[in-house]
Amino acid sequence: MPPAPLRCPRCGRAADGFTGCASCARDGVGVNTPPPLADLSGLDLAAYPGGPWGWPTALPVPGPPVTLGEGNTPVVRLRTTAATVAPPPAQGGGLWLKYEGANPTGSHKDRAMSVGVAAALAAGADTVVAASSGNAGAAAAAYAARAGLRCVVFTTDAVPPQLQAQIDAFGAERRVRGGGTAERNAAMAEAVALHGWYPLTSFSTPSPGGNPYANEGYKSVAHELARDFAGRRIDTVVVPTSRADLLAGIARGFRELREAGLIAEVPRLVAAEPAAAAPFTAALRASDRAEQERTRVDSGPTVAFSLGEQRPCWQGLDALWRTGGTAVAVDDEVTMAECRWLAAEGLLLEPSSAVAVAVARTLATGPDAVVVAIGTATGMKALGTASGRDGG
Amino acid sequence: MPPAPLRCPRCGRAADGFTGCASCARDGVGVNTPPPLADLSGLDLAAYPGGPWGWPTALPVPGPPVTLGEGNTPVVRLRTTAATVAPPPAQGGGLWLKYEGANPTGSHKDRAMSVGVAAALAAGADTVVAASSGNAGAAAAAYAARAGLRCVVFTTDAVPPQLQAQIDAFGAERRVRGGGTAERNAAMAEAVALHGWYPLTSFSTPSPGGNPYANEGYKSVAHELARDFAGRRIDTVVVPTSRADLLAGIARGFRELREAGLIAEVPRLVAAEPAAAAPFTAALRASDRAEQERTRVDSGPTVAFSLGEQRPCWQGLDALWRTGGTAVAVDDEVTMAECRWLAAEGLLLEPSSAVAVAVARTLATGPDAVVVAIGTATGMKALGTASGRDGG
Ligand SMILES: [Zn+2]
Ligand SMILES: [Zn+2]
Repeated sequence: MPPAPLRCPRCGRAADGFTGCASCARDGVGVNTPPPLADLSGLDLAAYPGGPWGWPTALPVPGPPVTLGEGNTPVVRLRTTAATVAPPPAQGGGLWLKYEGANPTGSHKDRAMSVGVAAALAAGADTVVAASSGNAGAAAAAYAARAGLRCVVFTTDAVPPQLQAQIDAFGAERRVRGGGTAERNAAMAEAVALHGWYPLTSFSTPSPGGNPYANEGYKSVAHELARDFAGRRIDTVVVPTSRADLLAGIARGFRELREAGLIAEVPRLVAAEPAAAAPFTAALRASDRAEQERTRVDSGPTVAFSLGEQRPCWQGLDALWRTGGTAVAVDDEVTMAECRWLAAEGLLLEPSSAVAVAVARTLATGPDAVVVAIGTATGMKALGTASGRDGG
Repeated sequence: MPPAPLRCPRCGRAADGFTGCASCARDGVGVNTPPPLADLSGLDLAAYPGGPWGWPTALPVPGPPVTLGEGNTPVVRLRTTAATVAPPPAQGGGLWLKYEGANPTGSHKDRAMSVGVAAALAAGADTVVAASSGNAGAAAAAYAARAGLRCVVFTTDAVPPQLQAQIDAFGAERRVRGGGTAERNAAMAEAVALHGWYPLTSFSTPSPGGNPYANEGYKSVAHELARDFAGRRIDTVVVPTSRADLLAGIARGFRELREAGLIAEVPRLVAAEPAAAAPFTAALRASDRAEQERTRVDSGPTVAFSLGEQRPCWQGLDALWRTGGTAVAVDDEVTMAECRWLAAEGLLLEPSSAVAVAVARTLATGPDAVVVAIGTATGMKALGTASGRDGG
């Protein structure tokens, strides 16, 4: 079976390789080139077992599955007043957290790498490669180990030591590049060109987002939410956003469900960004889409170290446009306060994840509205460090 | 609703309080006093949502639930040869890992604390207290935070700094006692007597095991396994064992399922212990049960720092007797090698958890036999430390 065909959703052109649409890139816009939406019609949502491989038909690779038990993460109702003891899902509105820290390597990236490494196997690759600020590298390393593939991870020296240790533990080759993200990505691009290694993450400029096959794993977040809320309307889903792989994947998952008649409506999607690196928030201030697509902001350091881009990937904007959504930027002090709030409720999240909760908290408008924040990664990897202390 | 009555399964006497059977303790045997087994008849195993609160009827407290999304942890097929890519459950025999590190605070203790803190709420407590080597303290702290209760955790200075940081993050009061487990437990006993704080863990001698209401949360491990293997026979379940709370809870969960006709047979249970602290392994060498019950061993330091007792709790022996099970002790070098094996397959486990996998590996006898190891805790909390490096 050949790999699923890739096509640019902005200009309609067919694509090959994993550097996004070349034509739109010349136009100054980074656009990813996904495979066709899956046809979910006839499937029983209540019986969906969860995880990317729970519905293999939703994936662009035939398998065999490469799985460590990713997905099926819990949805926890957050207190909005001190006294609330949370009821189970489907019983009320309010503020909910989908806790992706329950994934095998502690972040949502497992959903993508589970599919991306299977795609690498299907392509006959013997080496996979990732450029990562940490969680994606750890996930790539774990799934490559699971599949018996060699894994090379390009990082910068800004990656926290625990994340470095996690990448090392899985036996990946970690290559630290001086400089910043640009130098790291250039090193990965060179390796892909020179050795033909299979790329699991983004490495080109303007970034189109990550491997479009891998990204299909994120659709399962939407599929699980629809199952867990069991026909109850989800009003808003707030997603920590950098290159928008997760945001766009969730949007695609909901679209598939609606096209199959499994849900009535796609929730409004909201991109949560750190104020220091908020291209989507900046873009939506522009008056027309042509200008929004070409927005470029300065990005600075932030406690939400997993996040931080200068340009909005087009498919992220598309997810917001299609759902009537928006983007909200959060100051670091608000993010750290949210980490402490969450810890005071028994939940340890990475600051990058707390960004979404902080935004969701401002959007939970009434007792009947369901607002879900995606908590992308556990705070357990940073325990005992400055970030861990601040983070809860 | 009054709390469910507690009774000694060894001598039949009614009990109150959480220090086990006083009569059997005078006899030199630590025995916990569980509530009655739940009646699961008429329930649909396939529709069980997982987690302790998935079947509230199985719990000894009426609720409201105190939940952070615990339970429903994945079952991952482990490689037994390098080339195996794992199929989903119910498709074959072999060696399986139930990965409890996916719980909200990273260990199986969440299942117990979710129920124990609900029991504390139902009892009208305002302060809960735990004595812990780490994971139980972190779980107690998280669930107390969730419920809005004050939490005090007695620890020793042998607790790794990340676990201390996790307890602190949840706002618990951590009290470090010099000396060892005995001094720590004495301090907790004094606090329970003096202040009437609600005890979530064991603190008396000989230890009867933890709070018998909390321990009912562990039954959900058995319930989930039975659901996930969907009628397929599970031959053996290997459980890391110290005071046998988890082992005995899993045994009770399977008994409930069999008595309700939801499974045909209870799997053989096997206690996995570190060689440096292996009372169950020693006990089963004795020829009669009276001698087995009164076994006492020296316990020394081990990489499996979560484990380590000098006496076998009676209900742990009972679980092995009833299921034709056994106990196996593992040297630290084997445990650390198993940690590396698991990491090379994409899984980071605490050494205490790897003990069970190391034992299970020796018991996986053929392609048709299903052997499940319980991986009790994530290795992510120890990243970047000596234990984390050794641990993969
Ligand atoms: Zn294009
Ligand atoms: Zn007794």
